[in-house]
Amino acid sequence: MAYNRTTQKTTKPAAARSTRSARSTRAQASKLKVIPLGGLHEIGKNITAFEYEDEIMVVDCGVAFPEDDMLGIDLVIPDFSYLLKNRDKVLGIVLTHGHEDHIGSLPYLLKELNVPVYGTRLTIGLVETKLREHNLLNSVERVNVNAGETIKLGKHFKVEFIRSNHSIADSVALAITTPAGVVIHSGDFKIDFTPVQGDPIDLQKFAEYGRKGVLLFMCESTNVERQGYTMSESTIGKIFEEIFDSSTEQRIMVATFSSNIDRIQQIINCAQARDRKVCIVGRSMTNVVKAACELGYINYKEGTFIEANELKNYDDHRLVIITTGSQGETMSALSRIAANEHKLIEVKPGDKIIISASPIPGNEKNVSHVINELLKKGADVIYDGLMDVHVSGHARQEEIKILHALVKPKYFMPVHGEYKMLKTHENLAISMGMDKKNIFVMANGDMLELNSRGAKLSTGAVTSGQVFVDGLGVGDVGNIVLRDRRHLSQDGLMIVVVVMDSYTGAILRGPDIISRGFVYVRESEELISEAREAVRRALEECDLSGSSSEWSYYKTVIKDTLRDYLWKKTKRSPMILPIIMPVDL
Amino acid sequence: MAYNRTTQKTTKPAAARSTRSARSTRAQASKLKVIPLGGLHEIGKNITAFEYEDEIMVVDCGVAFPEDDMLGIDLVIPDFSYLLKNRDKVLGIVLTHGHEDHIGSLPYLLKELNVPVYGTRLTIGLVETKLREHNLLNSVERVNVNAGETIKLGKHFKVEFIRSNHSIADSVALAITTPAGVVIHSGDFKIDFTPVQGDPIDLQKFAEYGRKGVLLFMCESTNVERQGYTMSESTIGKIFEEIFDSSTEQRIMVATFSSNIDRIQQIINCAQARDRKVCIVGRSMTNVVKAACELGYINYKEGTFIEANELKNYDDHRLVIITTGSQGETMSALSRIAANEHKLIEVKPGDKIIISASPIPGNEKNVSHVINELLKKGADVIYDGLMDVHVSGHARQEEIKILHALVKPKYFMPVHGEYKMLKTHENLAISMGMDKKNIFVMANGDMLELNSRGAKLSTGAVTSGQVFVDGLGVGDVGNIVLRDRRHLSQDGLMIVVVVMDSYTGAILRGPDIISRGFVYVRESEELISEAREAVRRALEECDLSGSSSEWSYYKTVIKDTLRDYLWKKTKRSPMILPIIMPVDL
Repeated sequence: MAYNRTTQKTTKPAAARSTRSARSTRAQASKLKVIPLGGLHEIGKNITAFEYEDEIMVVDCGVAFPEDDMLGIDLVIPDFSYLLKNRDKVLGIVLTHGHEDHIGSLPYLLKELNVPVYGTRLTIGLVETKLREHNLLNSVERVNVNAGETIKLGKHFKVEFIRSNHSIADSVALAITTPAGVVIHSGDFKIDFTPVQGDPIDLQKFAEYGRKGVLLFMCESTNVERQGYTMSESTIGKIFEEIFDSSTEQRIMVATFSSNIDRIQQIINCAQARDRKVCIVGRSMTNVVKAACELGYINYKEGTFIEANELKNYDDHRLVIITTGSQGETMSALSRIAANEHKLIEVKPGDKIIISASPIPGNEKNVSHVINELLKKGADVIYDGLMDVHVSGHARQEEIKILHALVKPKYFMPVHGEYKMLKTHENLAISMGMDKKNIFVMANGDMLELNSRGAKLSTGAVTSGQVFVDGLGVGDVGNIVLRDRRHLSQDGLMIVVVVMDSYTGAILRGPDIISRGFVYVRESEELISEAREAVRRALEECDLSGSSSEWSYYKTVIKDTLRDYLWKKTKRSPMILPIIMPVDL
Repeated sequence: MAYNRTTQKTTKPAAARSTRSARSTRAQASKLKVIPLGGLHEIGKNITAFEYEDEIMVVDCGVAFPEDDMLGIDLVIPDFSYLLKNRDKVLGIVLTHGHEDHIGSLPYLLKELNVPVYGTRLTIGLVETKLREHNLLNSVERVNVNAGETIKLGKHFKVEFIRSNHSIADSVALAITTPAGVVIHSGDFKIDFTPVQGDPIDLQKFAEYGRKGVLLFMCESTNVERQGYTMSESTIGKIFEEIFDSSTEQRIMVATFSSNIDRIQQIINCAQARDRKVCIVGRSMTNVVKAACELGYINYKEGTFIEANELKNYDDHRLVIITTGSQGETMSALSRIAANEHKLIEVKPGDKIIISASPIPGNEKNVSHVINELLKKGADVIYDGLMDVHVSGHARQEEIKILHALVKPKYFMPVHGEYKMLKTHENLAISMGMDKKNIFVMANGDMLELNSRGAKLSTGAVTSGQVFVDGLGVGDVGNIVLRDRRHLSQDGLMIVVVVMDSYTGAILRGPDIISRGFVYVRESEELISEAREAVRRALEECDLSGSSSEWSYYKTVIKDTLRDYLWKKTKRSPMILPIIMPVDL
């Protein structure tokens, strides 16, 4: 279990005064370096280094999910070179909340660099699940910090955790006080005045820092392209109530993000009020709900939860199933249910299924596929667009403006988003009166050096980038391997094997041709045998008695011959692999 | 060029009377069979067969674009078996409009079955471009039909072309009069009371048929999940005017669908009014604009158009570039411009670029990528969401209800859409008072047999499905080939070659290991050499002196050994190809 370490409440006005005077002397000596190592020009793998003299603190350590062209890749993690090169400086990692794009890469960094991890209780709880999977639970120090508390890191950093709202409980923004000035980092946030659990985001605190003077505001940009406000999470509860009340006979199934504990709480509330049992389905849903219940983030009456194998003991109108798979992920519980491949749950006519999520860009087709399959099995499916069964966890334009107005920073760096979002965020700040030259739209690996006297941007100052995780391999799949996978995926491959007498060059066997992913071999026998013939003729024209150094030439002959022949016949370009096997007789 | 054949205007009231009396006698003898061969449970490859006694007419013949998991596939076309099996019955193909998902498969069908093609002038013009590419222009008969005209096909079919609105000019709905009754096919449509060109959809005509009695209404379902009305195409013109007027100094570039001639017309109008030259960029854009200008569907002043190599002769504020690539397609002009890979056009700071389209599901990430790249090069990019620079060509719920209310069919078949859309459309019809038992939510290959006395659905009555086009190959890539491509794309492959003495079984060379798309070989030499050693040891334990019939056993040994070894070491499963080369010495 995590334990509380040196968490200390500072008396704000005094601390602020002393910090400020300290700043004015030291500012002449040193600047704060802010180095985003991930999360810019992309969605995912958020990580930022804050460096002051001989100390570095890290905020978040997230993972990204592979793009479509990253074939076979499981995860994308940040390049940690800069931190590893400066390993003696690194004090610890401060986490804003427990989403994968903020904590997912932690085990990969901690394996290389064992430093303490700071976060709120739920965040640390989710980190611990992760550390356990990677056998790091006993070696890594975790520190629980409550929203409203301030921690001290090293000689130069003080970090106050500011209560926030987001689609996961216990999320915080950070106020990082350094000798060079104060940085406010928004984390991921929305402004929810009627949250399901806990209090609204601590706007007072943002105002207080703004009043005292903020050097740099780093603010997330996920929904900055959207006008207006994001609706409160609690509006969803009302919609659920309506749906439950109009579905008194049916079994109800809800798919949502496993980390959205407030959403899950609202479903449980609806179920309990109507005497329905709740069955949690899907690995990540089970893990998170278990952790959240243990830590007291989910309230439930004794006897509410049942296991999937108990479903058969209850009538439909006594049941609610909460499941993963709201993004149509192939291996998720809902996908398997939709495909009739789930061991314990079979969808049937009349089931009321709510997809309480909207598709993350890139997942639209998978989500549609699952909806179509569920409908074909007779279920009644309610999804975002048909009814308002989902709200975002990210602030829209008007909410973002509120933080800007409260924080009133000297400098501003839009973070957490694609380039177009960062640019839109820049325009939003300009529209509020900010000077464009005080706004820094940066890229991963850029470094912003700043203090009260100025700010300077160095582009590409630091090694950054993405490292692919494929199975157990971290970084052993790179662009060449991916290029080959893409080639293989498009037109398959054709292998030509020739066994040669290594002295005389006589062909002892072959050319034999083996193909995969190219054409149905059985229906294309003629094509294959003509291809073999073409290679045979081309080799006959070579003088095969040369030394082994010339074999690469024969390989080129085979490759060229086959490539031309296949292109002419099929307009396709499979990967061609000539293999010459010399035999010493 | 196309020519007008037997297009004839029927005097409606008389014709209707005679049809009706004919129907009442014949209905007892025969039923109309309606057989969707594509377009249901999918977006794309729309094609429907209408069969009455010994005659078949076909409506549309579209193509679908490959799903993400159809690796290397260029196009997906319908399975034409049913039409080819009944080739003597097929009278011709009637087209509703010139979009690829309605005409794209024509050449593939016409190569097998040469029948006349009927369509409006622009549709036929676009078909001719396609026939020319496939060397079919001289062999296939084309018939131009104007909206408002009626054609006769065979003994049993009369088809009236009803003027419609859509995101391509010259689109029509169809009224198909048969001895069994009248079928109204909506084609793709929206209700645009202020179209850019031509007249609004001919609602009067739908009402007239409705009044006389419609047996079956087939209506498209693309936007049936969306509430309200789709805005008029001409609203876009006003937005363009605003953008042009606020960008008096900049070069303007607009990306849109090449087939959206009305959109292109509005851009040209804006340009001409502000003394800007227009440069058309991208292959399909050039083709369509050329055809549309020749056929009189685009109006322009002499000297408006310039070639891309003339751009350098004009100041920025004198230029508008209209280009393909609004979907972020990798090889499109806009993508190449964004990547600095276009020969003649380089994007520069200040360029105003309008993406006048919204991403088709599945293309979101590609579109974002292009926007990000353009912004990084300093361009000012306006895209859907930031401003209303696009409207759909498809009717939303309220428009769809208008057609239902006018047509008042006896039976209804939702078409053109995923299953969830067809179901939503069914619910829409029920909400308007239709009886669920008169609604047929069908699948491709189902057959609806109907006349005034009843309707009967046979599921899976007819062969249907998808055929993959890959390069020149039509149908030679199927599920086994795709499965191999998927496998190769995920973890690459590992080839093991062993040369054996075919009599003694002695290993003359090998095992040699070649891998592609698996790991960086250079950095994984140890892994590969250990794998080789594992295979060698496993083969040593076999008795290799067996006959050739046992080689498949050796292959299994190699495969199993390697698979287990690699999974243990890497948690990956590359395709393993053991190749045994026996040599007769």
